[in-house]
Amino acid sequence: MAPIDFWFSIGSTYSYLAVMRLGAVSARSGIAFTWRPFSVRAIMREMGNIPFADKPPKLKYMWRDIERHAAEFGLSPKLPAPYPLKEFDMANRVAIVGREEGWCEAYVRAAYRGWFERGEPAGEEPNLSASIREAGQDPARVIGKAAAPETEAAYLAATQEARAQGIFGAPTFVTGGELFWGNDRLDSAIAWHRSH
Amino acid sequence: MAPIDFWFSIGSTYSYLAVMRLGAVSARSGIAFTWRPFSVRAIMREMGNIPFADKPPKLKYMWRDIERHAAEFGLSPKLPAPYPLKEFDMANRVAIVGREEGWCEAYVRAAYRGWFERGEPAGEEPNLSASIREAGQDPARVIGKAAAPETEAAYLAATQEARAQGIFGAPTFVTGGELFWGNDRLDSAIAWHRSH
Repeated sequence: MAPIDFWFSIGSTYSYLAVMRLGAVSARSGIAFTWRPFSVRAIMREMGNIPFADKPPKLKYMWRDIERHAAEFGLSPKLPAPYPLKEFDMANRVAIVGREEGWCEAYVRAAYRGWFERGEPAGEEPNLSASIREAGQDPARVIGKAAAPETEAAYLAATQEARAQGIFGAPTFVTGGELFWGNDRLDSAIAWHRSH
Repeated sequence: MAPIDFWFSIGSTYSYLAVMRLGAVSARSGIAFTWRPFSVRAIMREMGNIPFADKPPKLKYMWRDIERHAAEFGLSPKLPAPYPLKEFDMANRVAIVGREEGWCEAYVRAAYRGWFERGEPAGEEPNLSASIREAGQDPARVIGKAAAPETEAAYLAATQEARAQGIFGAPTFVTGGELFWGNDRLDSAIAWHRSH
């Protein structure tokens, strides 16, 4: 079966839930996922979409909702995690390098664990180097490559690819041109994937 | 078992799915739902929350997502339905009268069917009188009462009650102080309700 595209941005809070359970979901379902980092922040800025930061009741609900889901999935985050991330783009540019070199998933999981479970913002130290190291890579080399123009170009191209598919939020699962937005639509994406 | 509060506004698109299936869900689960109309628009305006109208990719996704869910639930809406509703407040003030008099649910279902299945906006004619009649009531009497100051006061009070509970969107299910926002969180609300 073809893989499902998993579009995410490190910085999206609900992506924590998807990132942490996707390995187990993939093993159980036999479905592969292609991890696609992009800048959801760029797309949301274009739409004037500020989902939580200036909306206290929604923000409060979001943390409580993530807490309930995390308990369901056997996760123990320390909430609220630092939010929003200052070094959003660096966190995701490293994921772009990881995608090119084959260690994206391990890095993203480590970055989210550090951010949500130790309270260390992704994209900055000590999370950044620790997560790159957990993925088996050398932090100095990877951070240098993440800052290079070709990585910036790949990041912009991935974001443009997401935009062209109609993606406006993260995480988004895409299978056969169908978008499923949100961690809680993963089951629907899998059901659709199987039946089409 | 105590009922689950079902907070909704006629005008919310995803509430169509909840409204149309809630009767069957209640019969199957043995759980009662208290139908609570309020003005989600007032609360969203306060937060500067414009979820779809100025965000074309989100709007496009919303209609497609509702179409997929509707098929799952055996519903056949004509999409996109007229959106946003012009007579949002009238539609909901009639629901407030229906709640006081005991025919809220029948009216709301009829209003959504007219809006989503015949393309007739709720809160205006011919939907308004037809939906009141389907609930077994006299349109002239009900529309007069819906426009009266005491109904406006009850509508504002319901909205304030929602706001005080932290509600920021519709539909929202509330059980034991826990909020579950969105038609697709109904199963989670029921699971929570049963286990607490």
